[in-house]
Amino acid sequence: MEISNRIRGFQASPIRRLSPYAREAKQKGIKVYHLNIGQPDIKSPKEALDAIHNYPNDIIAYGESDGDLALRNAVVKYYNESVGVDISVNDVLITTGGSEAILFSLMALCDPGDEVIVPEPYYTNVHSFARMANVSIVSVTSLLEDNFALPPLSMIEERITSKTRAILLNSPNNPTGHIYSPKELETILRMCQEHDIFLIVDEVYREFCYDGLNFTSVLKYKDYSDRVICIDSVSKRFSMCGARVGVLISRNRNVIRETLKLSQARLCSPTVEQYASLAAFGAPADYIENVKREYEKRRDFIVKALARIPGVKCARPNGAFYLIAQLPVEDAEKFAIFMLKDFNYKGETVMLAPAEGFYESKDLGRDQVRIAYVLNTDDLEKACICLAEGLKAYNQN
Amino acid sequence: MEISNRIRGFQASPIRRLSPYAREAKQKGIKVYHLNIGQPDIKSPKEALDAIHNYPNDIIAYGESDGDLALRNAVVKYYNESVGVDISVNDVLITTGGSEAILFSLMALCDPGDEVIVPEPYYTNVHSFARMANVSIVSVTSLLEDNFALPPLSMIEERITSKTRAILLNSPNNPTGHIYSPKELETILRMCQEHDIFLIVDEVYREFCYDGLNFTSVLKYKDYSDRVICIDSVSKRFSMCGARVGVLISRNRNVIRETLKLSQARLCSPTVEQYASLAAFGAPADYIENVKREYEKRRDFIVKALARIPGVKCARPNGAFYLIAQLPVEDAEKFAIFMLKDFNYKGETVMLAPAEGFYESKDLGRDQVRIAYVLNTDDLEKACICLAEGLKAYNQN
Repeated sequence: MEISNRIRGFQASPIRRLSPYAREAKQKGIKVYHLNIGQPDIKSPKEALDAIHNYPNDIIAYGESDGDLALRNAVVKYYNESVGVDISVNDVLITTGGSEAILFSLMALCDPGDEVIVPEPYYTNVHSFARMANVSIVSVTSLLEDNFALPPLSMIEERITSKTRAILLNSPNNPTGHIYSPKELETILRMCQEHDIFLIVDEVYREFCYDGLNFTSVLKYKDYSDRVICIDSVSKRFSMCGARVGVLISRNRNVIRETLKLSQARLCSPTVEQYASLAAFGAPADYIENVKREYEKRRDFIVKALARIPGVKCARPNGAFYLIAQLPVEDAEKFAIFMLKDFNYKGETVMLAPAEGFYESKDLGRDQVRIAYVLNTDDLEKACICLAEGLKAYNQN
Repeated sequence: MEISNRIRGFQASPIRRLSPYAREAKQKGIKVYHLNIGQPDIKSPKEALDAIHNYPNDIIAYGESDGDLALRNAVVKYYNESVGVDISVNDVLITTGGSEAILFSLMALCDPGDEVIVPEPYYTNVHSFARMANVSIVSVTSLLEDNFALPPLSMIEERITSKTRAILLNSPNNPTGHIYSPKELETILRMCQEHDIFLIVDEVYREFCYDGLNFTSVLKYKDYSDRVICIDSVSKRFSMCGARVGVLISRNRNVIRETLKLSQARLCSPTVEQYASLAAFGAPADYIENVKREYEKRRDFIVKALARIPGVKCARPNGAFYLIAQLPVEDAEKFAIFMLKDFNYKGETVMLAPAEGFYESKDLGRDQVRIAYVLNTDDLEKACICLAEGLKAYNQN
């Protein structure tokens, strides 16, 4: 009477795994700065909150399995007007978070034992979704020294086997902040075409591109439409992570039609939060502009603050709101636990996500952490002081 | 560049499959009575709606992966006080609907190729969840003639192989309305113990037991705690189907700890609707009493109304709000499509769920439909008139 092999020995998400230590620290009255999770402190749009406060129905009823039609139309309008790509409502499925869109993509394209190629470090929960679907993640390593640019395409091509069903990218990248260039995208698309595999691109951080960089969606490349799945979500764009409203987009009708069967099994995505998401798409354009400016300020701040801590190295991320930092410790997980369990500086400490779980390759990222710069600069400053003091204390032991 | 075998040839849910025809009928101005889906017309509790209208936070943030602690505590209180079973908060995971609780149970217990035994007809979406997890459903047939009582236990035992990981029951049953007796439950639990497998019981319709019957939860049998998973949801109890808030309960700590890893991958269940669900548990006891009385009235009504239609047979369900009806047609799916596509009676028609997809065995249920008696008796009456007229018209063709 045992648990399945599917999840036995399956490491819990490094983003969440240390939560019990954080809870204990808080119970001791210690203030914990959460740099472990991409939970922004930014307010959700007033339009979304108003929609919730004025929710008009007296039955919280099932919605359509492919998502609320008005919301799907709002998504189309946003893509046409803001992303500059031409999609139709038939290309759009609303999912229960971007999470479900990734899981459904893997399930729709892969059978047990099939492989998906992912540049590492990568969004750690993809590992869990692959375990759920019995799909193997085959990684290609990108390096801090290279600012986490895509490794040479020949290295990716080498990993393609008869079992490869797709390449999965996340751009702007969680956890590295790297943005794939149009040239990189197009080369990868050509490679996918040559090997007859799919390209899945998770673009949930699309709005968060800094240094004046413009983002190019994979959906721009219409010649490759048939082999592209684009993943999106309201979580980060509208600071509505708890809404669990995501989007799966593909111009491949077969993908949409077949994935809809998975959607039908779970009936619908949350009704009230779809209603709020619809309203969020009506927020004025400066909502997202202000948010982006705020994150860019935080990016500038934390990169400088980390550079001042002896032994800490990090790449300068161009997008999203994460970075991978290398710490002067052997085992970043032990250090992260130490920070919660055995340390505080003036009653404060910081929670970090150990980066090892963001790598598929063994022993990579052991001295790294992922930092989500989702706090205001005052809090980031205090968090960085805790980190500096914590490293000092840890390395004196 | 093809879709996975996992979903190729995977029949879409019969509950949802005919929706495009219904949409077309509505576009033609025809009123469609939805007997295809368990979407009650009962109002959600005022407490839940008030909670939404007064949602206090200005960030719709991630919640805990195991669910909002206050909600988990409310679930425990409800079980202690209303279900009469003693569980602790550590036995409870909040899931994204009962749907996710079923999927997670299958994933946590089974590897690809493993088997789960389910009495048929069964909740059709279980078939989809099994496909997602590459688990095989092994069915034992219960018969309309026997009022869908469990087949002889020897028949179930015969199906147990080295690959069997669990038996899955749903009581009160969707689609049959059958309630498993305490004696049946205990015998099955003993069988599970003997063969060292799990028992999963989906009890989401627990409140809907008619004819004065008392419901006995599988959680009452504490001697078997280690091999029991109980599935629950706010969907039907509080008429909050769209909230996507479910519950997975097990006193087996290993099951909870390992399943939590699946929960952590998708971060959390919907935040606002968990908040509303917490409030729903505070609804006065007569909310559910009134709802139950209403459904019992509808059950009485529809059983009589169907008995008056020539050639229609149905069992008398004791619980839930579904029944399986045998129709005087060869192919109930064709008939259901006819009703939406080619028929209306005074501008009205009815949408039915063909029952074949509720069976695992080939060719069973072809002349049956599942009816969800979730409409008020006036509408049920009109729906039954449409059904009677539709059968007449169909059989004249």
